[in-house]
Amino acid sequence: MPGPRTIDLNADVGESFGRWRLGDDEALLDVVTSANVACGFHAGDPATLVATCRAADLRGVAIGAQVGYRDLAGFGRRFVDVSADDLYADVLYQLAALDGIARTVGSAVTYVKPHGALYNAVVHHELQADAVIRAVADYSSDLLVVGLPGSALLAAAAGAGLATVREAFADRGYTAAGTLLPRTEPGALLDDPQEIAARVLRLVREGRVTSTDGAEVELEADSVCVHGDSPGAVAMALAVRNALSGAGVRLAAFAPPPSAPPPSAPPPTA
Amino acid sequence: MPGPRTIDLNADVGESFGRWRLGDDEALLDVVTSANVACGFHAGDPATLVATCRAADLRGVAIGAQVGYRDLAGFGRRFVDVSADDLYADVLYQLAALDGIARTVGSAVTYVKPHGALYNAVVHHELQADAVIRAVADYSSDLLVVGLPGSALLAAAAGAGLATVREAFADRGYTAAGTLLPRTEPGALLDDPQEIAARVLRLVREGRVTSTDGAEVELEADSVCVHGDSPGAVAMALAVRNALSGAGVRLAAFAPPPSAPPPSAPPPTA
Amino acid sequence: MPGPRTIDLNADVGESFGRWRLGDDEALLDVVTSANVACGFHAGDPATLVATCRAADLRGVAIGAQVGYRDLAGFGRRFVDVSADDLYADVLYQLAALDGIARTVGSAVTYVKPHGALYNAVVHHELQADAVIRAVADYSSDLLVVGLPGSALLAAAAGAGLATVREAFADRGYTAAGTLLPRTEPGALLDDPQEIAARVLRLVREGRVTSTDGAEVELEADSVCVHGDSPGAVAMALAVRNALSGAGVRLAAFAPPPSAPPPSAPPPTA
Amino acid sequence: MPGPRTIDLNADVGESFGRWRLGDDEALLDVVTSANVACGFHAGDPATLVATCRAADLRGVAIGAQVGYRDLAGFGRRFVDVSADDLYADVLYQLAALDGIARTVGSAVTYVKPHGALYNAVVHHELQADAVIRAVADYSSDLLVVGLPGSALLAAAAGAGLATVREAFADRGYTAAGTLLPRTEPGALLDDPQEIAARVLRLVREGRVTSTDGAEVELEADSVCVHGDSPGAVAMALAVRNALSGAGVRLAAFAPPPSAPPPSAPPPTA
Repeated sequence: MPGPRTIDLNADVGESFGRWRLGDDEALLDVVTSANVACGFHAGDPATLVATCRAADLRGVAIGAQVGYRDLAGFGRRFVDVSADDLYADVLYQLAALDGIARTVGSAVTYVKPHGALYNAVVHHELQADAVIRAVADYSSDLLVVGLPGSALLAAAAGAGLATVREAFADRGYTAAGTLLPRTEPGALLDDPQEIAARVLRLVREGRVTSTDGAEVELEADSVCVHGDSPGAVAMALAVRNALSGAGVRLAAFAPPPSAPPPSAPPPTA
Repeated sequence: MPGPRTIDLNADVGESFGRWRLGDDEALLDVVTSANVACGFHAGDPATLVATCRAADLRGVAIGAQVGYRDLAGFGRRFVDVSADDLYADVLYQLAALDGIARTVGSAVTYVKPHGALYNAVVHHELQADAVIRAVADYSSDLLVVGLPGSALLAAAAGAGLATVREAFADRGYTAAGTLLPRTEPGALLDDPQEIAARVLRLVREGRVTSTDGAEVELEADSVCVHGDSPGAVAMALAVRNALSGAGVRLAAFAPPPSAPPPSAPPPTA
Repeated sequence: MPGPRTIDLNADVGESFGRWRLGDDEALLDVVTSANVACGFHAGDPATLVATCRAADLRGVAIGAQVGYRDLAGFGRRFVDVSADDLYADVLYQLAALDGIARTVGSAVTYVKPHGALYNAVVHHELQADAVIRAVADYSSDLLVVGLPGSALLAAAAGAGLATVREAFADRGYTAAGTLLPRTEPGALLDDPQEIAARVLRLVREGRVTSTDGAEVELEADSVCVHGDSPGAVAMALAVRNALSGAGVRLAAFAPPPSAPPPSAPPPTA
Repeated sequence: MPGPRTIDLNADVGESFGRWRLGDDEALLDVVTSANVACGFHAGDPATLVATCRAADLRGVAIGAQVGYRDLAGFGRRFVDVSADDLYADVLYQLAALDGIARTVGSAVTYVKPHGALYNAVVHHELQADAVIRAVADYSSDLLVVGLPGSALLAAAAGAGLATVREAFADRGYTAAGTLLPRTEPGALLDDPQEIAARVLRLVREGRVTSTDGAEVELEADSVCVHGDSPGAVAMALAVRNALSGAGVRLAAFAPPPSAPPPSAPPPTA
C-alpha cells in the first residue's frame, strides 16, 4: 500500500445562464481543487464565465474547460450526432473563449473535460473523441485531458501526446467490471455523504472500490468528481475533502493554475 | 498634398451560419487587407470561423474580431440595451474565441471592429463604448480598435491606451458635416463601382470627399470599408483596389498578422 | 365607495428553461386567478409550457401569453430595437404556440401580457405597441390585453377593438402621478407581505394608493400583479389573496379559461 | 395499369433565417401542391413563416408543418437523442406556432412532415416516432402525416387513427429493397431534370422505379418530394410537374388548404 498520496477533487461550476442560477459555485470552489467551468454552449453565459474564473482564481483553484454539445435546451445531456469537423470547431471555440477569459483574470485553462452526453459519447465514439482531442491539441499541447479510464478519449489524448487524467466519481455506483452503473439502475447514485467520503478515501488510499454487487474492483484515479448541482452537493464535497485531509491525503490540482501558490506551500484547508 | 501613401481595405467575412451561406469570402479575401471576422454571436458558426481564419491566413490578410450583440435572428442589426457588465463579457468571449481559433491556424486577431447596431451605438453610447473597450484592453493592450472618426468608441480606446483606426466607407454618402447619411436618405448608398473607386482614391490621396449636397468635406481615414454581402460586393472591392494600386497607393493592413510577409515585401496584387 | 367587488390576481409562471428551474409555479398557481405563461422566446421551453398549462388548467386558472423579446440570455429584460414586422411575427408565433399547447390540455389562451422590457417599451413606443396589438388582433379578436393604465399598448388595443385590462403592481411604489417608481429609486420595491396586502386591499376597495412621497393617488385596476420569481413570492401572493378574501372581495379571472367552472360557482379558496 | 391518377408534389420552404436566405420559395410555390414550411427550431424565423404562409395561401398550396430537432446550427440534420417528453413538446410547440400563423393568413396546417435527421430517425426509432405522433394527434386528429412507406412514423400514425401519406423522392436513388440509397453512395442523388421527370412519371403511372443496381422496385407513393434548396431545384420541380401534367396526371394536394378552390376546379398550371 502506498503512503500518503495526492488527489484532485473536481466539480462542475459556471453552469448558470442569464437569469437562471444553478449550483452554489462559491461554496464549491472553497472545497475543490479543480473547477470544470461551462463554456457557453450547453450552459454558462459570458458574464457567468468571467465571475466564475475570478472566483476560481481567487482561491487558486485550477480552471478546466467543461466543453459540451451546442444544446442549451438540453443542457448538453443529449447525444448530438455532430460531424467531426463541426465538433472540432465547437470545442476549439469554447476552449479558446474560456481560456481568454481565464487569462484576463490572471489564470488560464489548464485542462479539458467533456460534459454530459459528450463525456459519455467519447468513452466509445472514436470519431467524436478524435475531434475533441484534435481541437485540444491544436489549441495547446500543454493541456491535460480528463476522462473515464479506458475511454476512447484518453486513448486519443495519449496518441496526440497530451497528458491524461483518470477520473473516478464520488457518488456513482460501479459494476464489477469497473464501469459506471447506468443511472437507471438501483445503486447507481449514492447520496450519504459519510458513505461517499469513506468510499473515496478507500479509493484514493487502496485503489479499490466495492461494486454494487459486492465485488472488489481495482480503480486508479487521478481526480475524483464531486457533483455540483444536487441539493446536497456542497455538503457531500466537504465530507469527501475532510475525510481525505483527515487521513493525511494531500489535495492538489493535477494541473495547477499559473496563479497558484508554489507546490511547496501547504494545500488550503476547508 | 502628401505623396504616395498607404491605406487598408477592410470587409466583413465569416458571416455564414450553419446551412446558410453569406457572401463570397474567398473572393473578398483576395482583395482586402483586413478581414472583420464574425465571432458567433450575431453571425458565424465555429466551423465557419476556422475556415475563414485559414483562408485569411493563407493570403496574409489581417484578422479582426467583428464583435456584435448576441442576436442571431437580428444579425446584430438591432440595438440591444445590454448592461455594461454583460456587454463586457460578451465582447471578451467573442474576441477570445476568435483569437484562439486564429492562433491555431498560425495567425492572430490584431484588431477589433464592432458590428452593425453595436457599431452605430458606440458612436454615441458611452456606457457601451466603455464596456467594449474595457474588454479589448483587458484581453490585450496590443489590439487596435476600428471605428468612426469622432466616435465615443475611439475616444474610449485612446483613453485606455489602445491604438485607434479611423474608418471611412467606400459606398456610403456623407453629409457636409462629415457624418454618414442615414440609410433611409437618397444618396446614402452608392452602387457604381467606378464612381466608388474614384471617390475612395480621392479620399486617400486628398483626404476629402464630396458630400451628397456638393460640399467638400475633410475626412481622414486609416482604413476603408468595402461591404461584403451585397451582390456586387466583390466587383466593387476590386474596382477600389485596382484604382488605388493603379495610382501608386500602397495597400497594407494597419495591423498585419504575425504570419504576414515582412513589410519590405511588395503587397499582393489582385 | 363601491361595495364588494371582483379582482384578478396575475403572476408570471412557466419561466423555467431546460435544466434551469425558476419560481414555484405549482404553489403560485394555487393562489392566483390568471397565469402569465412564458412562451419560449425569453423564457420557457416547450416541455415547461405543457406542464404549466396542465397545472393551470387543473386549477381553473386562466392562461395568458407572456410574450417577450427573442432574448434568452437577457430574460427579455433588455430593450431590443426590433422592427414592427419582426415583432409582429415574433408575438404571433409565441401566442400561437402557447395557445395550441393550452388547447391540447383543454384550456386556451384568453389574454396577452407583454413581458419585461417589452412591457416597459410599449408604455410609450407606439410602433412596437401597434405591432404587438396587430399580432394579437390578427390571431383572435376575443383576446384581452393586459397593460399599464394609460399605456400606448392599451390605447392600441382599444383602437383595434380588443378588450383591455388595467394592471396594478402589488409590490411596486407609485409616484404622485400614478406611474411606477423606477426600480433604482428608494421605495420602488416593497417586500413586507402584510403592508403589501393592506395596500392592495385599499387599492381594490377604494381605488387609491399612497405614493412614495405620501400623496393619495387614484388608480383603477382590473388585475393586480404579484411577482413570481422572488424568494418570498408565494408568501406575498398568499397574503394578498387572504387579505382580499377576508374582506369579501371576490377573486376571479378577468378572462376565465374555457375549462373554468361556471361563473355562479364560488371562487376557489387558498 | 391504372388510368389517369392524382399525385401531390411537396417541397421544403420557409427555411430562411433572419439575414440568411435559402431557396427560391416563391418560384417553388408556383410549382408544388404542398409546402413543408419550417417551424423555427431548425430553420425559419417567425417573419419568414408569416411571409411563406401568405405566399402558399395566395397560390392555394397546402401548408404542412416541417417539424425538426431544436438545432439551428445543424439545420436539423444531426440526430439528437431527445427524450420522448421533450420531443412531444417541441413538436407540439412548432406545429401550433405554424398553424396559428397559417390561420391568421386564412389557411391552416393540414399535415405534418418531420425534417432532416428527425425524418430519418423516425423510420426506425419508435420512441421518437411515437412522441411525434402523440403531439400531432393531441393537436388535431384531422392532420395527415407524411413519411417513408414502412416507417415507424407511419405505423404510429395509423395506430393513432391519423391518415398517412406515403412519400417518394424525385431525386434519390433507391435500393432493390425499395429503401433510399445512403447519400454517401454513388447514384444516391440524381440531378438531370429530364431523367428525374421521367422517373417520377413512371413511378406515378406504374408504381415502379428502377433501383440503382437495375432491379424493378414496386413503390406506392401519395406524394413526391422535390428538394428545394439545391441550385437547380426549381428547374427540376418544374420538369417533374410538366412531365406529369403533360401525361394527364392530375396534380393536387393530398390535404388541401381550407382556402383552396373546390376540388372540381382544374389544377393550376405551371
